[in-house]
Amino acid sequence: MLEKLLAKIEENKDQMIDIRRYLHENPELSFEEVNTSKYIADFYKDKDVDVQTNVGNHGVKVTIDSGKPGKTLAIRADFDALPIEEATGLPFASKNPGVMHACGHDAHTAYMLILADALIELKDEFEGKIVIIHQDAEEVPPGGAIGMIKDGVLAGVDNTFGIHVMSNKPYGVIHYVPGEAQNGRAKFVLKVQGVGGHGSSPHEANDAIVAASYFVTAIQTVVSRRLSPFDTGVVTIGSFDGKGSFNAIKDSVVLEGDVRGMSEEVRKKIEVEVKRIVKGLEVMYNVTCELDYANDYPVLYNDPELTEHIGAVLSEANFEDVTEVVKAGPMSPSEDFAYYAKEVPSSFFYVGAAPVDKEAFPHHHPKFDIEEGSMMIAARAMATVVADYFSNDQSENK
Amino acid sequence: MLEKLLAKIEENKDQMIDIRRYLHENPELSFEEVNTSKYIADFYKDKDVDVQTNVGNHGVKVTIDSGKPGKTLAIRADFDALPIEEATGLPFASKNPGVMHACGHDAHTAYMLILADALIELKDEFEGKIVIIHQDAEEVPPGGAIGMIKDGVLAGVDNTFGIHVMSNKPYGVIHYVPGEAQNGRAKFVLKVQGVGGHGSSPHEANDAIVAASYFVTAIQTVVSRRLSPFDTGVVTIGSFDGKGSFNAIKDSVVLEGDVRGMSEEVRKKIEVEVKRIVKGLEVMYNVTCELDYANDYPVLYNDPELTEHIGAVLSEANFEDVTEVVKAGPMSPSEDFAYYAKEVPSSFFYVGAAPVDKEAFPHHHPKFDIEEGSMMIAARAMATVVADYFSNDQSENK
Amino acid sequence: MLEKLLAKIEENKDQMIDIRRYLHENPELSFEEVNTSKYIADFYKDKDVDVQTNVGNHGVKVTIDSGKPGKTLAIRADFDALPIEEATGLPFASKNPGVMHACGHDAHTAYMLILADALIELKDEFEGKIVIIHQDAEEVPPGGAIGMIKDGVLAGVDNTFGIHVMSNKPYGVIHYVPGEAQNGRAKFVLKVQGVGGHGSSPHEANDAIVAASYFVTAIQTVVSRRLSPFDTGVVTIGSFDGKGSFNAIKDSVVLEGDVRGMSEEVRKKIEVEVKRIVKGLEVMYNVTCELDYANDYPVLYNDPELTEHIGAVLSEANFEDVTEVVKAGPMSPSEDFAYYAKEVPSSFFYVGAAPVDKEAFPHHHPKFDIEEGSMMIAARAMATVVADYFSNDQSENK
Amino acid sequence: MLEKLLAKIEENKDQMIDIRRYLHENPELSFEEVNTSKYIADFYKDKDVDVQTNVGNHGVKVTIDSGKPGKTLAIRADFDALPIEEATGLPFASKNPGVMHACGHDAHTAYMLILADALIELKDEFEGKIVIIHQDAEEVPPGGAIGMIKDGVLAGVDNTFGIHVMSNKPYGVIHYVPGEAQNGRAKFVLKVQGVGGHGSSPHEANDAIVAASYFVTAIQTVVSRRLSPFDTGVVTIGSFDGKGSFNAIKDSVVLEGDVRGMSEEVRKKIEVEVKRIVKGLEVMYNVTCELDYANDYPVLYNDPELTEHIGAVLSEANFEDVTEVVKAGPMSPSEDFAYYAKEVPSSFFYVGAAPVDKEAFPHHHPKFDIEEGSMMIAARAMATVVADYFSNDQSENK
Repeated sequence: MLEKLLAKIEENKDQMIDIRRYLHENPELSFEEVNTSKYIADFYKDKDVDVQTNVGNHGVKVTIDSGKPGKTLAIRADFDALPIEEATGLPFASKNPGVMHACGHDAHTAYMLILADALIELKDEFEGKIVIIHQDAEEVPPGGAIGMIKDGVLAGVDNTFGIHVMSNKPYGVIHYVPGEAQNGRAKFVLKVQGVGGHGSSPHEANDAIVAASYFVTAIQTVVSRRLSPFDTGVVTIGSFDGKGSFNAIKDSVVLEGDVRGMSEEVRKKIEVEVKRIVKGLEVMYNVTCELDYANDYPVLYNDPELTEHIGAVLSEANFEDVTEVVKAGPMSPSEDFAYYAKEVPSSFFYVGAAPVDKEAFPHHHPKFDIEEGSMMIAARAMATVVADYFSNDQSENK
Repeated sequence: MLEKLLAKIEENKDQMIDIRRYLHENPELSFEEVNTSKYIADFYKDKDVDVQTNVGNHGVKVTIDSGKPGKTLAIRADFDALPIEEATGLPFASKNPGVMHACGHDAHTAYMLILADALIELKDEFEGKIVIIHQDAEEVPPGGAIGMIKDGVLAGVDNTFGIHVMSNKPYGVIHYVPGEAQNGRAKFVLKVQGVGGHGSSPHEANDAIVAASYFVTAIQTVVSRRLSPFDTGVVTIGSFDGKGSFNAIKDSVVLEGDVRGMSEEVRKKIEVEVKRIVKGLEVMYNVTCELDYANDYPVLYNDPELTEHIGAVLSEANFEDVTEVVKAGPMSPSEDFAYYAKEVPSSFFYVGAAPVDKEAFPHHHPKFDIEEGSMMIAARAMATVVADYFSNDQSENK
Repeated sequence: MLEKLLAKIEENKDQMIDIRRYLHENPELSFEEVNTSKYIADFYKDKDVDVQTNVGNHGVKVTIDSGKPGKTLAIRADFDALPIEEATGLPFASKNPGVMHACGHDAHTAYMLILADALIELKDEFEGKIVIIHQDAEEVPPGGAIGMIKDGVLAGVDNTFGIHVMSNKPYGVIHYVPGEAQNGRAKFVLKVQGVGGHGSSPHEANDAIVAASYFVTAIQTVVSRRLSPFDTGVVTIGSFDGKGSFNAIKDSVVLEGDVRGMSEEVRKKIEVEVKRIVKGLEVMYNVTCELDYANDYPVLYNDPELTEHIGAVLSEANFEDVTEVVKAGPMSPSEDFAYYAKEVPSSFFYVGAAPVDKEAFPHHHPKFDIEEGSMMIAARAMATVVADYFSNDQSENK
Repeated sequence: MLEKLLAKIEENKDQMIDIRRYLHENPELSFEEVNTSKYIADFYKDKDVDVQTNVGNHGVKVTIDSGKPGKTLAIRADFDALPIEEATGLPFASKNPGVMHACGHDAHTAYMLILADALIELKDEFEGKIVIIHQDAEEVPPGGAIGMIKDGVLAGVDNTFGIHVMSNKPYGVIHYVPGEAQNGRAKFVLKVQGVGGHGSSPHEANDAIVAASYFVTAIQTVVSRRLSPFDTGVVTIGSFDGKGSFNAIKDSVVLEGDVRGMSEEVRKKIEVEVKRIVKGLEVMYNVTCELDYANDYPVLYNDPELTEHIGAVLSEANFEDVTEVVKAGPMSPSEDFAYYAKEVPSSFFYVGAAPVDKEAFPHHHPKFDIEEGSMMIAARAMATVVADYFSNDQSENK
């Protein structure tokens, strides 16, 4: 099966690039991907496959059924873009002002459609089912995964795999991360309500800027003293909205916080401690606090056995253009693939995509771009992993 | 002279009210008082007096010259309004949206024009000169006084007197404050420049919100530990402009600070200490700070002898409607009359103006109003003080 | 009466100096002044006067009764010394190691004994009673005044007067302070109890040093933001007892705080705010706090009318050696004379005593000394005030 | 060789226990272990081995030379005790008041002597040399390792192995930790010098407690914002020596800090940031700081290949009483074995020693004890690793 798969993909290389460029030119924001969703669904028209649209929000679920009993594997690619004004100067740069595929989701969708096409053609060659998850809204909590899972995208699924192309990893290198791989996250909004007044009379007011500033200094102790030094956790106050007039005491300010933790225990601990400090703030400064604290993307936990196996399979594959398959440690950013991994043993791995002949810019940068060959690597790598998954040797795999 | 003065004023009581209401209906912002300035100058048309316009910015200087040698006394009334949307529901409420006479400067100008009119008519009755200072832009630093002084409004002037009507003091009560009477002030703008970054990676950024928050906590020690407990000083951070995205580390924030001090020593000490803390912040948090620190209105220092004398004169006057003349302590707000008082021995006193039959709102409040009778009290009080000033008994007064 | 009084005092000038030097050589700590108390009582032996010992603790109450109806005036001198190792090198330096009259209470007692002796001799010359309060334990809260009052020292007393000699005011100058004259005070002890642990594992402990340090920064806002800028208040953390081992997390620390306020409202406000912050600390840092907060010496409030009158009387007196009688503002240190002033209208005034021919050291300094002539000034000044008090002109005085 | 080694050790099991109990009864503090050192040297008397005493301080170097060319392996056991009053109630409890073997170094020395004895007898069975490092002063920086290395204990040594018995790990379990295994450390002492004064007059002083408290809050940002969330680092202020009088402003305080970091980069980063904050503190609070910052024990880095190999060897060994050989993550405490590991590829592993029939207390606890059988496990495990090291299969080992 693998050989044929790889051949099919090779055949459609140019189409893959066309798709990616089309999507790149026509990006849509999270939860607003109406045309992208339709474009994906249209791709499957006249193909012998079951296509379900508007799964969750604009998600598309494609089921490739071999007709034979066996395991069900889901593979996921996301397709939303970001509120960024593109500055790449590419011929196929965004035509949608202020919106840009600056995270490579265009590439994810392009490789996945070509891979899916090949899998559909070869569906007699494996036993079981393959579910293609074309997911919307990865960038913005609560994320598209939750809705698609709610709408049954994982029904009967044994495992889920996914790939992210990485502009900050060298082209030709694949990373896999067994266990905790990407931070879980929470967001909070804290309104600190004091009493306004004249700048010359602090005793007749209750200065919300002062209370909130002390909060920012106190919150540092969450990471410095309340977590284990071996834990990975972050509390960032990304927004301190206290703009006012220099000579008036501010009655209220609004803080927004970003929380990261590499385990559910860490996330829980941070939540407890942030809430504790907020309660203390109310008492200490006689202010009223409204705290809206929401955990969103969980820790992305890659099933260790599955992931080590994928690492081994990819290492042995000896692809053209792949120079190294590396076991790596966890990464800071969060990823809503984590929701699938909470439901079924899953693995998410990373394909290096730094441009070879030009400067590499980080994800979410207006000049973000990828080496397009990375899509072929992603397609081949996922094809290999899928073929292995359905091979007899692996039939005992969980 | 006094009797005739009081009689003249009494005669023009209705005109005084008309003037005040006209001004109230047609407020203009500080430094933009083109029409108000013209209205004032027009009042003096055909009167036997020297009128100089555009003194400083839109200031009007009126010189009433007795033709006889003697002292020169300046009396000042300000005429600018505030950027406040009026909510009084008065029949003569502001017709200029978002602009309002919410500090009583309309009343100051109304009483002063009527008083000036009387003084012009009676100019044979005194020896020396009276300068009427119709001052623009009291509300907004650098204030109108500086410019008028620069343009010579105090040339040859021996003393300056002024009045403020007070909605937060009972109608019928006059306050005088020998010595320090109103706070001096400074304003500062502090930009704290760090390095932005992703919320999950604080070590790759340099969080300006964190640095600025520690600044706010450190700045508390200026008043709590660095000033004498007997000093009057305030440092308020009125604006903390650090709005951003919850999951990005903020690269820079801008703070705005309001400084008050009841002596030049206190103002100087605060300036030194704020600058010290800013320098320390740069080192401690590896940030770059831009500090724009400007002292504006000085401490208003009422000449003690002159002011005690005014208190005595007013106490003995036994005006209708004046129930009490009170020696009071200093007040928090700042006032650019202080510039005159730095140049020549001066005195600024306060006429209670709380509405008698309705709720009193503080100055700068959208519902601010005064008991209009307070204008008559102001006119009579200033007339009395002026008459006394030029009487023989007072000829030895400095 | 006054002339005779002054003559009597002049006669005993040498004895006054002898007494002071004897007391200086034999200082005793607060609440331990057994010998000093006996020395004082012995002075009155064989005199026609009522002496009561062990009033409060070691206080001595002497009642000089004219036998005629009239007002009762108390005059107070304190006699305790300080736990300071004297370093003056005086021939009559302390013979009691580690104990020193470094605040002038020896001088107070010396002038008072000589004055009392004169008053006893002249008791036919006035109508009413004079109570001499020889007070112990002024230096250490709760102070000796409370106990003496409890034991009835003020029973029937109309007014109380007292004097302090001041090494930091020029010799020859008398200060009087109508109204608030010396700060009220409170002391607090705060134990912050966390959980100890190994320096490398903060998450398994709860660091009391961190919590207490945040407390110190938070407490700054009491003075900087919670009091009026016109209030006089201080909160000093004088002791932060957190000595431990560098590599162990401290389980508890003990802070000691000193609170000053120039009005009972300020003292009350500070107490409320300190307690608020302590409660907030418990919540915010999950520590347990034990707070022992005790108000001790009240604000010393000199009856304004009485004090202005004393100022006038002293100004008119034109004593030899007195160059100036000055109305002054309030002072930082606290004084338990305040307790008498809470009970009856009282006045406490200040006799400059800076050494004329050598360096002046502050009170409580190991080299503290006074110009001995200041005792004669004190005696004459108090004699004058007392004579005036019982003169007919003053009979209407409250 | 291994079989004979294990047999020899088994034979001397009782002696091992006797040695441990003797040492436990006679503990000596770090750098003062004169008798312990002599006891160890005496053990080797009349044995065919080279013994060198007073290596470094009280270290003992024993060289077992096979006479044949080959690798040289060092194995290390430490022998100092702690300043703790023993509270175990053991029949062989410390006879030296206030000193206790509360970290198991008695056990280390006991197993090592018995193992050394066996290795000496069997020295014809291997090729190369074995150096036994009996190290003093592990507990107190700078530690005994530095001095022994300086005196040449590692001259010609290819690798070093060591063991720690662990009362907090279950008896029967061996842990090995490839790579970073124990934190590196630094200690700092910071004197903050302000200006003392009277509690009521902060403006005349410069409060060292306030400055030092702000330092403690600022230092939290080192871990919370300046290190990577993936780094392991700690900054603990273990001592805040600011005891004073409640009503005096403290002129100086001394802080002591404990720094941990799991890489040299982290240690370096913390040092840079602590120094930066201290410099900022001087500027911000106008205080003078003396900082004595000393890195002591490095990160203990176990050579990964060597350590994985040891893990494999021990896993295959199937010792009696050993239920599990576990690959574990790094630990918080520091260990001066790290100095050897900086010089030559080394490995330090951990033998579970929690008492089986009674409560386990942590290291450095007055009731600390070990299951004595853990010494036999340690001896067998080290024997196995040594035998493997000199076996032919391993001859290519680095």
